[in-house]
Amino acid sequence: MDIQEYMQTLGRQARAASRQLASASTAAKNAALCAMAASIRDRREELLAANARDVEEARAAGLEPAMIDRLTLNAKGIEAMAQGLEQVAALPDPVGEITDVKRRPSGIQVGKMRVPLGVIGIIYEARPNVTADAAALCLKSGNAAILRGGKEALHCNQAIAACVRAGLAAAGLPESAVQVVETTDRAAVGQLITMPEFVDVIVPRGGKGLIERISREARVPVIKHLDGNCHVYVETEADPAKVVPIVENAKTQRYGTCNTAESLLVDRAVAARFLPEIARMLATKEVEMRGCNESLAILREAAIPGARLVAATEQDWSEEYLAPIIAIKVVSGIDEAIAHINTYSSGHTEAIITENYTRAMRFLREVDSASVMVNASTRFADGFEYGLGAEIGISTDKIHARGPVGLEGLTSQKWIVFGNGETRR
Amino acid sequence: MDIQEYMQTLGRQARAASRQLASASTAAKNAALCAMAASIRDRREELLAANARDVEEARAAGLEPAMIDRLTLNAKGIEAMAQGLEQVAALPDPVGEITDVKRRPSGIQVGKMRVPLGVIGIIYEARPNVTADAAALCLKSGNAAILRGGKEALHCNQAIAACVRAGLAAAGLPESAVQVVETTDRAAVGQLITMPEFVDVIVPRGGKGLIERISREARVPVIKHLDGNCHVYVETEADPAKVVPIVENAKTQRYGTCNTAESLLVDRAVAARFLPEIARMLATKEVEMRGCNESLAILREAAIPGARLVAATEQDWSEEYLAPIIAIKVVSGIDEAIAHINTYSSGHTEAIITENYTRAMRFLREVDSASVMVNASTRFADGFEYGLGAEIGISTDKIHARGPVGLEGLTSQKWIVFGNGETRR
Repeated sequence: MDIQEYMQTLGRQARAASRQLASASTAAKNAALCAMAASIRDRREELLAANARDVEEARAAGLEPAMIDRLTLNAKGIEAMAQGLEQVAALPDPVGEITDVKRRPSGIQVGKMRVPLGVIGIIYEARPNVTADAAALCLKSGNAAILRGGKEALHCNQAIAACVRAGLAAAGLPESAVQVVETTDRAAVGQLITMPEFVDVIVPRGGKGLIERISREARVPVIKHLDGNCHVYVETEADPAKVVPIVENAKTQRYGTCNTAESLLVDRAVAARFLPEIARMLATKEVEMRGCNESLAILREAAIPGARLVAATEQDWSEEYLAPIIAIKVVSGIDEAIAHINTYSSGHTEAIITENYTRAMRFLREVDSASVMVNASTRFADGFEYGLGAEIGISTDKIHARGPVGLEGLTSQKWIVFGNGETRR
Repeated sequence: MDIQEYMQTLGRQARAASRQLASASTAAKNAALCAMAASIRDRREELLAANARDVEEARAAGLEPAMIDRLTLNAKGIEAMAQGLEQVAALPDPVGEITDVKRRPSGIQVGKMRVPLGVIGIIYEARPNVTADAAALCLKSGNAAILRGGKEALHCNQAIAACVRAGLAAAGLPESAVQVVETTDRAAVGQLITMPEFVDVIVPRGGKGLIERISREARVPVIKHLDGNCHVYVETEADPAKVVPIVENAKTQRYGTCNTAESLLVDRAVAARFLPEIARMLATKEVEMRGCNESLAILREAAIPGARLVAATEQDWSEEYLAPIIAIKVVSGIDEAIAHINTYSSGHTEAIITENYTRAMRFLREVDSASVMVNASTRFADGFEYGLGAEIGISTDKIHARGPVGLEGLTSQKWIVFGNGETRR
């Protein structure tokens, strides 16, 4: 098979389907989503068999247990996929929304209409549920999708794709609205990201190395995030009742997620008061603390049993550990805190703990990250928690969409003009 | 001078300035804009002298008269620049706007805050007024700017840059908020578009070749438009009183602008009625008509004195003439019209002339261009006409900003969370 020709065929079909999808009724899109869910439930045994084959091959190939775990689908996972499709059906349709219509001195009325982006290419790891989720979000937002999942999940992805096609057909929508790339050749990715005539945006998910490579080589816009080096800043007027619960939740609720806090900043004025308290909590959870000299001095003085203290290096301020490790720095005030974050953060999510109104508002305004929070855990940076219903990913880019990307992030707004024969002077 | 080092210095300074600008008050930004205007008026003689030097060198170098014309600045042009700065001062500040704040079941309140993009690189032709306009729009939207104008305007751009710096200093803002690239070495452009650490978005203006090259080579997002192949579609229920005025205005008001109509589609059912009438108007203006077979047959039958009729080739459907030439095609109905536009258009601006409500709404929804109009001239696609106050350019891209890009297009929205100690379950 000629990969270039194959991918261009997918692209051409996706472009054609995207025209139809852009004008598809909400009812038809919802009917397709519900029919997909029904098909996934009907074909449960097929999906399990396809997944079993993937898992077997992955084991034989010596894949890591954590990856095998992500790859594995059970009956509960299949039901969750079906429910996910139904949940997207229940979300409001963003397409066609008309806003900001204003009459101009010339007589024309100018406004904006929300429209799909067109064709979305999604490149993701070997997680079968992403195939169904991504298909649902793209379809509901009126976009055609080309899905390229990790090669280890190929059989299962093909089985899910068959359910998706069945759902589309049942609703009278073009089957090429959602296409799964059926080759494991890596050249397919290179082709997918360099067809601006057929693909409007790429959403890559997975390891940082992969996403960096895709961003570097893509000839179409990429919605992505690379790192989640999230900060919690304990300000001088932090409410003592909020400090430990927020730091505990932000750092220790889950270690492997991108919205987990990796760095803790503590104001000098309250460091001696709060650091030992925080460290006691972290010590019980066996979280390694990589501190600046000043924080280490305070913590050594406090002699907390079981505390793992390590001197932080410059590298620690930029690190996304995804592990029970946290970087700790004492700062001289909000200016240094904001400057530190804007220098070292990956631009994902940052939180301040304070009761001071002016400093809370300054933090919200001046911290240049996709999500900025006052008195809340960074773990809230998530499409479901924000009320988007679902998310296709999180963006730390600055144009188009920042933070969790839901249905609206897969659309843009064109200008519309309601005229009555006006001509320009 | 080492170009890479020079550009990185500009980039580093711009990044630092952008942090200050993001939190600058509206009052300070407006004061700077008004002080720039005053400085431009004060230094009128210097600006004229610098411009005269540019024009003299450009003439000696054999530059085309049209380009010399764009390059030349007179007292009126200088006053217009100053007024342009004051007009931007009078526009509402987009930065800091908080919208869509909703309380979530977890207790947090989630909303969006409008923020600057950061550092904007603008690459443009030898038009001194763009230097002032671009500086104003970037500053008002809280962005630092690196401006790289056409080399023929270097002396005048440097003189304008001095006025801009004086204005910034007068308002207590960092002078490196707006920097003009002071080298004519083309390598500076190559460097500017490949510094994602210092530049957040590039806005290229000028010839299609230049913009294509920049888009291809840029390592940062580019807001751009390449072509303006705009269509007017005369539908079966077009109001006879609106047809000729709109086509006349869209095609003939100005031939060289990107929102000028280049293609006319006429429904078969009304072609015999409207085409001769339209052609008579075009003939009096000496506009060459490149028609499909069917339209040529109708127009030849009508024997219009002075009509220049030429058979259209496939190439004509994609052409941006920027000249008194129009492509004409008879279509079988709205389906063919929409399909034709979505196939051949550059995605800039399209208009339908109709009194039929359902077809008007279909056109608005299904035509995939940055601006879509009913019963109005395509010439209205413009930042001033749309009420943006000013525009930095027009985008035919699909992500971030479509159509005229004003202050809002130079910002994006981050998520903000107002919490009260909430942690995630």
